Amino acid sequence: MKGAFLTSRVVRKGLQASTLQARQRSSLPEQAHQTASLVQGEPNYPVVATAIPGPKSQELMKDLNDIQAVGSVQFFVDYARSLGNYVADVDGNVLLDVYTQIASLPLGYNHPRLLRAAHSPEMTLASVNRPALGSFPDARWPQKLRSALMWLPRDMTNVQTMACGSCSNENAYKAMFIVYRNRQRGSEDLPPIEDQQSCMLNRAPGSPSLTVLSFEHAFHGRTLGSLTTTRSKPIHKVDIPALDWPVAPFPMYQYPLDQFAAENSAEDERCLQRAEEAIEEYNRAGKWVAGMVIEPIQAEGGDNHASPEFFQGLQKIARKHQMAFMIDEVQTGCGVTGKMWAHQWFGLDGPPDIVSFSKKMLTGGYYHTDKYRPNAPYRIYNTWMGDPAKVLQLEEVISVMKDDKLIENAADVGAHLMTGLNGIAERRPGLLSRIRGLGTFVAFDLPSGGQRDKLMAVLRSKGVVSGGCGDASIRMRPSLVFQRQHADIYLGALESALAELGGD
Amino acid sequence: MKGAFLTSRVVRKGLQASTLQARQRSSLPEQAHQTASLVQGEPNYPVVATAIPGPKSQELMKDLNDIQAVGSVQFFVDYARSLGNYVADVDGNVLLDVYTQIASLPLGYNHPRLLRAAHSPEMTLASVNRPALGSFPDARWPQKLRSALMWLPRDMTNVQTMACGSCSNENAYKAMFIVYRNRQRGSEDLPPIEDQQSCMLNRAPGSPSLTVLSFEHAFHGRTLGSLTTTRSKPIHKVDIPALDWPVAPFPMYQYPLDQFAAENSAEDERCLQRAEEAIEEYNRAGKWVAGMVIEPIQAEGGDNHASPEFFQGLQKIARKHQMAFMIDEVQTGCGVTGKMWAHQWFGLDGPPDIVSFSKKMLTGGYYHTDKYRPNAPYRIYNTWMGDPAKVLQLEEVISVMKDDKLIENAADVGAHLMTGLNGIAERRPGLLSRIRGLGTFVAFDLPSGGQRDKLMAVLRSKGVVSGGCGDASIRMRPSLVFQRQHADIYLGALESALAELGGD
Repeated sequence: MKGAFLTSRVVRKGLQASTLQARQRSSLPEQAHQTASLVQGEPNYPVVATAIPGPKSQELMKDLNDIQAVGSVQFFVDYARSLGNYVADVDGNVLLDVYTQIASLPLGYNHPRLLRAAHSPEMTLASVNRPALGSFPDARWPQKLRSALMWLPRDMTNVQTMACGSCSNENAYKAMFIVYRNRQRGSEDLPPIEDQQSCMLNRAPGSPSLTVLSFEHAFHGRTLGSLTTTRSKPIHKVDIPALDWPVAPFPMYQYPLDQFAAENSAEDERCLQRAEEAIEEYNRAGKWVAGMVIEPIQAEGGDNHASPEFFQGLQKIARKHQMAFMIDEVQTGCGVTGKMWAHQWFGLDGPPDIVSFSKKMLTGGYYHTDKYRPNAPYRIYNTWMGDPAKVLQLEEVISVMKDDKLIENAADVGAHLMTGLNGIAERRPGLLSRIRGLGTFVAFDLPSGGQRDKLMAVLRSKGVVSGGCGDASIRMRPSLVFQRQHADIYLGALESALAELGGD
Repeated sequence: MKGAFLTSRVVRKGLQASTLQARQRSSLPEQAHQTASLVQGEPNYPVVATAIPGPKSQELMKDLNDIQAVGSVQFFVDYARSLGNYVADVDGNVLLDVYTQIASLPLGYNHPRLLRAAHSPEMTLASVNRPALGSFPDARWPQKLRSALMWLPRDMTNVQTMACGSCSNENAYKAMFIVYRNRQRGSEDLPPIEDQQSCMLNRAPGSPSLTVLSFEHAFHGRTLGSLTTTRSKPIHKVDIPALDWPVAPFPMYQYPLDQFAAENSAEDERCLQRAEEAIEEYNRAGKWVAGMVIEPIQAEGGDNHASPEFFQGLQKIARKHQMAFMIDEVQTGCGVTGKMWAHQWFGLDGPPDIVSFSKKMLTGGYYHTDKYRPNAPYRIYNTWMGDPAKVLQLEEVISVMKDDKLIENAADVGAHLMTGLNGIAERRPGLLSRIRGLGTFVAFDLPSGGQRDKLMAVLRSKGVVSGGCGDASIRMRPSLVFQRQHADIYLGALESALAELGGD
């Protein structure tokens, strides 16, 4: 325990210095706090002390560049001085972080309960004795899976942990293929000898030309199978071999939604029809479509939302064609949309067959129905199959989420953000468009990619770390301890940045 | 720190009870300790208190089976009572572990220095603030990479961390494809617009039909790209789509090696020739072979060894065909063979282009030469890109390895094991064959898979956890704190088990 308090003291000490600097240097107006911070001791505002990346970050980039590529590094972080919604860099800047390590921090930085959990005896045991979970699990593993993962969704009865999002999706696809081939063969027995032999040469029938349908602009990961279903940006895919798998359009709505109800409904119909056509075309060609995978809100591909009716329609199509209906909640899961899982907004007729997760859930993995449990050991397997240290951490996260009502907080703050963004859009016509969100999973568009990139740079100079997505969108991916007062700082910085961008 | 000592106390208390049981119940003769244990307080012998899995493990299996498949679970572990080379289960059994979580524990269970490192302030920060390493690394990340990863191999200048072995290999293949296509285009510029557009539909030229050569019996992982190069067992591959990539035979030697030098040299020649033929055939068909991947010793596929000359020959072929020469050291790395990396035994003419690692290294990742650094940001990228908590743990492992001379220990104990196994083989002709090893990376064959499986069960009933591989092999994968006295217990148990198996 001593270590945890020590760390907390270091964090607080660092931040006192920052707050002093904040009073001296921040260009932002002081905001009245509406509620107490969910993370005690958090700064009140960002501090911008240098250009970002500052001189120390630039020095470290040169150093790191000796041993790996650094083209994607934004700045170097001082994690000991980061707290709650604020990330501190090595140059004395303390920034409001609405991107939170690509949407992967559930409780922001150095949450006191995670610091405490990091020193529990069971965490120590898990981290120094990482097991091969598929063969030698810890005595408390079933109980830990239940308390961290099985409290929601109630209607999905199985869970398989994995190390990361890509790996979770890859293994979920494998589960689809196994079930689909068993059905084609009409048997749960092990495949015939011809299949077992031909698969060793990567040839049919053992290596069948089964496929997975994904959607334009989708992002499902970066390993070769998951990358085949990713269709977000050329830089992710070009020069990498891919499988010939079908694609269908994801609805592209006109905004504001209430003014384009008929058009958007027609867009749903068009996309559903195209999805079914793609499935039928591939099935006719013997490239059987074993499943479809879709994000509830496409994130990397541009924060594209679709209606409950669209998802309901897909579920019907999947059933009709005896395919798996899989939802990839790697970015949308863990409460940010105002429900634990974004797909719970869709009023589906029964659970999806598979739901994958990672990022804020800290462990990768996927839920599935009984049907998608593999019919023999070692068909879905690897050395680690996840990491119990991450599941223990998640258990604490879930407990904090319940105690502090963080899902409700995301719904409330999200509504506050949307109101603020719509107000800004009205005051600055022609700059912000397509304002959209569920909970704090909020995005808006700039007129061009160039203006979007410029706005992000100006926001950073004002002490806000944000993320882009799609062609010209900014996405907000704050942690679950993001509150109204943080939203107000963000909105203030945005309006001020837009004024600079707009030239007034 | 308090937590660490607390945990150590719990471990010791549990083990005192076990040692008492050991004296009462062990069927094994007491072994004289030749040297002090590298992990203080470790038991002196295994304890077998129940059938394995015992009643508590069986109860837990039923419980876990409610939420996930348990067909591969061997027993449930009591990690608090495991120490050094001994794993304790929930039924009071304390077993000598020569399989160590599928070869993934570098220092056995609850090593005191890892317990201490688990409570350092920097470990706490890393574990509660897991960064997106490609964008927001910690200030000390370059230094940590150097001390944990860059001290060896000295001739490979770049390192990229990843979450697991499959993911490391997948990304290494991507690095190969990027470099190969750049060379084909004769440019380091971003690919032309036609490539960028066609890749979004998974079609050439943007999604090229590039390939990776792998070898019969190879194991490189379970995600779709790495699984395409895996050729170990049908259960890993059947029903999962694969890419059409080339394969070549891995040498299958006759043992003892010194009696079959000419035959084995001819086998090398045959396999090298077939590898080059496969490359030329695929290149002619426009399925350009961008690289080859090979294990220094094939592990999962049967602990197949090949000569330095074979690997030297492969490196020449790779150079001639302008392909990447990649060594997969996921299982062979981290000192077990008596060198830090098994390929250091091969006298290669310069470094391999890529070397991947995971398991005992605790973090996944790969080393590469400057040439394989991606030519633009975000081409090799994902959210986490590894986990600094694992790198901090590895830093401590490396420090212990140096302090306790664990690589030298592996060489010494390996030689002792080989002598012991050869003695047993002489005393029991017709039972053990193909005894082979480098360091403690040792294996031997039984006459049939059935006898191998039976021997493993008998060994377990005598308090030894071992692993099988290939058709009829037993592989030893102890941790680096496995010493001569542990080898003697193993050899005693083996000889006694063979006596049961042989019926005398």
